Amino acid sequence: MKLASYRVDGRDSFGIVDGQHVYDLGKRLGPATPDLCAAIAQNALKQFASLPGSVTPDYAFDQLTLLPVIPNPGKIVCVGVNYLAHREEVNRPATEHPTLFLRVAESQAAHGQALLCPAESDEFDFEGEVALVIGRAGNRIAEADALSYIAGFSCYNDGSVRDWQAATSQWTAGKNFRQTGAFGPWLVTADELPPEQPMRIATRLNGVEVQKSSTDLLIFGMARLISFISSITPLSPGDVIVTGTPGGVGFKRVPKLFMKDGDVVEVEVSGIGVLRNPVRKERLAG
Amino acid sequence: MKLASYRVDGRDSFGIVDGQHVYDLGKRLGPATPDLCAAIAQNALKQFASLPGSVTPDYAFDQLTLLPVIPNPGKIVCVGVNYLAHREEVNRPATEHPTLFLRVAESQAAHGQALLCPAESDEFDFEGEVALVIGRAGNRIAEADALSYIAGFSCYNDGSVRDWQAATSQWTAGKNFRQTGAFGPWLVTADELPPEQPMRIATRLNGVEVQKSSTDLLIFGMARLISFISSITPLSPGDVIVTGTPGGVGFKRVPKLFMKDGDVVEVEVSGIGVLRNPVRKERLAG
Repeated sequence: MKLASYRVDGRDSFGIVDGQHVYDLGKRLGPATPDLCAAIAQNALKQFASLPGSVTPDYAFDQLTLLPVIPNPGKIVCVGVNYLAHREEVNRPATEHPTLFLRVAESQAAHGQALLCPAESDEFDFEGEVALVIGRAGNRIAEADALSYIAGFSCYNDGSVRDWQAATSQWTAGKNFRQTGAFGPWLVTADELPPEQPMRIATRLNGVEVQKSSTDLLIFGMARLISFISSITPLSPGDVIVTGTPGGVGFKRVPKLFMKDGDVVEVEVSGIGVLRNPVRKERLAG
Repeated sequence: MKLASYRVDGRDSFGIVDGQHVYDLGKRLGPATPDLCAAIAQNALKQFASLPGSVTPDYAFDQLTLLPVIPNPGKIVCVGVNYLAHREEVNRPATEHPTLFLRVAESQAAHGQALLCPAESDEFDFEGEVALVIGRAGNRIAEADALSYIAGFSCYNDGSVRDWQAATSQWTAGKNFRQTGAFGPWLVTADELPPEQPMRIATRLNGVEVQKSSTDLLIFGMARLISFISSITPLSPGDVIVTGTPGGVGFKRVPKLFMKDGDVVEVEVSGIGVLRNPVRKERLAG
């Protein structure tokens, strides 16, 4: 199943996307299941797997205004320097454990929504990534069991404001500007994308491929990430792990390549689809 | 007012603490205001200021099992190296902007609850700090207006697992182990603690003072922090800003001083009170 969060007819909801057809699950599940995060936590999705084709669709995909796949995750754990080609281009040493940073939910953007280059920077960089969403609660999860905790996968563009990322030792500021982390277009459930099978990932800026890799090249693979992160903090349904970006980022190119007002950036992951965002320069009032 | 979050009679609630007397606000406000974070967002607290003394208390303070002051903040933004004495002991350069990192809500602990030294470390360090809680939504808040966004203040012990903090360039892992960030005992509302007036802060380990400072020595003061953070991400009611720790941390002492099973650690802030936690070593089953 492809599951999306969206706004339609003046309300926030979520549902199954099947080509141009959308089957709304928000209204089928009712107020006790207000969003996709809750539906995952309640294990309420599988019962709808046979909906497409068996009932009349509720909406056409074009009617939707998409939201970030999980608009309100309890936590968004991002992994830094997790492909060798990227680790080399940023000249970071190998580490025994994954490098983690956090995003706040307010830093996210939806498929189709503008990614916002903040007013105080001209160094807004792309980072195409595969995101996974946790399906059930876990604490100190063994690596051998870890993949069974995945609800599904999506594309992520971990838009990074490089000068603010580098302004102190911690990347938090540069990774948390409003409307910089694109997450979409939908969640593909894990049963359709066995995580042992490598996913190809590509990032394109104005149609030109700028990053290309495959998840079998992750330094710390998905099972290790889930196990490691859950050794620190309990994982909950709807939590998001953003697995890291391949080589080719803009700020390590000669000359540097940043995202500018009017650009279009895409992250494509095989088996998932294309996350596409226009880029807009923030203009402050007054 | 002193406002606390707690568990009592098998339910989570919150209320006013007046010496040994507790006036429950959770049951007065009802299910539309499920927690202190919601009560702040709804601006629902001021109407109860005259409750103490005018009605019979609902509980004695000793009956409560406290929760972290805000158990479910939307975000917890912590500030690193924000006192000169601490910046010097950790040998970090001056920066033009505050150094930020994030904690997840699951890393928090309540007053009286054990702080947990993770099984995989013996380097569990104290960091006494003043925390402020945001009272109303704000975005790109001007420094001159920033203090009016504060709902109140509390004590925080930003318990830090030093070997995991130093394992990669980003501090996230060492700052997010479960049950390491103590937050309490209560929120003192801003009207009782004008933030222009310096607050004295002290940390004690087993009764011995190990940190001592005052908020007028913050490198980036509270107004600057609120303004800076809100230039990056919108702030919401209940968001927590943990303002930084003074000099004297354990891992920079000779010999190093860490928190061990059976220790008791206290953070005292003038005008707020004492946040006290026993320390326990995590033991894994099996």
